[in-house]
Amino acid sequence: MVNKIDKIALFGGTHGNEITGVYLVKKFIKNPDLLQRSNLKVLPFLANLQAIKLQQRYVETDLNRCFAPEDLENLDTILYEQLLAKNIHKKIQENQVNFLIDLHSTTANMGLTIILSDTNQFHLELGSYLSLIEPEIKILHYASAQKNQLLRSNIKLGITLEVGSVPQNVLNADLFMKTEKIIYNLLDYLEKFNQNKIEKKSHNLVFYEVFKTIDYPREEGDIIAMIHPNLQSKDYEPLHPGDPLFITFDGETINYEGNATVYPVFINEAAYYEKSTAMCLTRKRESYVTFN
Amino acid sequence: MVNKIDKIALFGGTHGNEITGVYLVKKFIKNPDLLQRSNLKVLPFLANLQAIKLQQRYVETDLNRCFAPEDLENLDTILYEQLLAKNIHKKIQENQVNFLIDLHSTTANMGLTIILSDTNQFHLELGSYLSLIEPEIKILHYASAQKNQLLRSNIKLGITLEVGSVPQNVLNADLFMKTEKIIYNLLDYLEKFNQNKIEKKSHNLVFYEVFKTIDYPREEGDIIAMIHPNLQSKDYEPLHPGDPLFITFDGETINYEGNATVYPVFINEAAYYEKSTAMCLTRKRESYVTFN
Repeated sequence: MVNKIDKIALFGGTHGNEITGVYLVKKFIKNPDLLQRSNLKVLPFLANLQAIKLQQRYVETDLNRCFAPEDLENLDTILYEQLLAKNIHKKIQENQVNFLIDLHSTTANMGLTIILSDTNQFHLELGSYLSLIEPEIKILHYASAQKNQLLRSNIKLGITLEVGSVPQNVLNADLFMKTEKIIYNLLDYLEKFNQNKIEKKSHNLVFYEVFKTIDYPREEGDIIAMIHPNLQSKDYEPLHPGDPLFITFDGETINYEGNATVYPVFINEAAYYEKSTAMCLTRKRESYVTFN
Repeated sequence: MVNKIDKIALFGGTHGNEITGVYLVKKFIKNPDLLQRSNLKVLPFLANLQAIKLQQRYVETDLNRCFAPEDLENLDTILYEQLLAKNIHKKIQENQVNFLIDLHSTTANMGLTIILSDTNQFHLELGSYLSLIEPEIKILHYASAQKNQLLRSNIKLGITLEVGSVPQNVLNADLFMKTEKIIYNLLDYLEKFNQNKIEKKSHNLVFYEVFKTIDYPREEGDIIAMIHPNLQSKDYEPLHPGDPLFITFDGETINYEGNATVYPVFINEAAYYEKSTAMCLTRKRESYVTFN
């Protein structure tokens, strides 16, 4: 049961080459009025300034895998991002943050995605509210084994905004403006939530649940196939058993051998080649959400 | 007057994060038969192995700006890529290469582009031949002030294949296969050229000539605007005086103030933010090419 949200942390640049979030946070730091609401304090942060300067995802290791409680407590983890994670974690605690937004972008065609690590009632109501305003929004439930390593997992109510497709180190104006609008709608929601002024509504919320990741076919570690052209950019679209999945460098098609229709996301995300992830498979779910 | 082409150098990975060329060259190194033609010797090279390993454009400086003759001769230029350029230059000379292909990719929506530093008759005939087979091909004449710094400028008959849009460190199967096909068609052309077997044809060749680059609006070095959504991905399409060019982070539109219609390319190329280039403006040209 969530009573009141009053301290919100808004992070951009958790990955230094995902610059939609970087430039949005820079804008908010310059114009703090834009984030002001009657009963909220919103703190904009650039998470990994060193990586931003280098225009790289990270300096030494992926910051967004450094927040597992055991790693935060371990004084022997001393890579740059491991130290930075401890610092960010402390900042979140000291500021008594009770809601966290982490801004990301992807080379996959995921449009406007809100990623949740769980499907608690508060998150589902929030997702319903936002997607009723902006029907393009997709809700992705991604409770991976590594979920407690993520920045958003520092507190109970942490979400990720994931927008794409946009190349690394590129700004897409349309996605920039749509992300900005989602942030404003989200803050409006939290303001009204605190005032008990959310309009009562019911909504059949569709969301997608990651249950598996698939790697590229490889030989001795190196990939030997690419995402099949029929699947490229088809995030959230149905993939049926027997549909093309990959095409090898020699032109041979590899089909999906599962036994049920699935909905892939993060298809061909640049940063996931090194994470052995060509895509994540999801199942489509529905939840009847009543909220006020 | 070109008499005979017999030694061809095919480079991929001149920029380490443009992996279409990297994986194509790896494929050719593994399967040299694919490049074999009766009267040609084709040498596939990975240009910047260190940058490829790091998944970065370059290690210390842009390799594709290191080939100016005065820099190649200067023993005081000792950045990694400056040294590498000298090495590559020597390799080209020792192998007596007389045709060079450099494989690149771009985050701009440039489809299949052949970039030429000049419009000599040989290049125009080649461009005509290839674009008659594959009408998607665009011919770009880019004779920048820096043109002699490029890998392709090492020899008289050097061309760049530039394909996009594709994010850095991502493989797009469709562009991969189309690039491969262009290479085969090109080798077939050169083989027939040596045999005097090119069919006589006439063709009104359209090409685009870069005459100017435009930077992002900036304040104290940092950008304050993005490519306008109306212009995003519209490479090679007409931009008229008064058309939207940029949109600032505050939502203000900045229009094109030129006095004639132009055709922008390299719109929103990730690597060009640091080169103060938001796009290159071209004029559309036509040339009546008769060849055999």
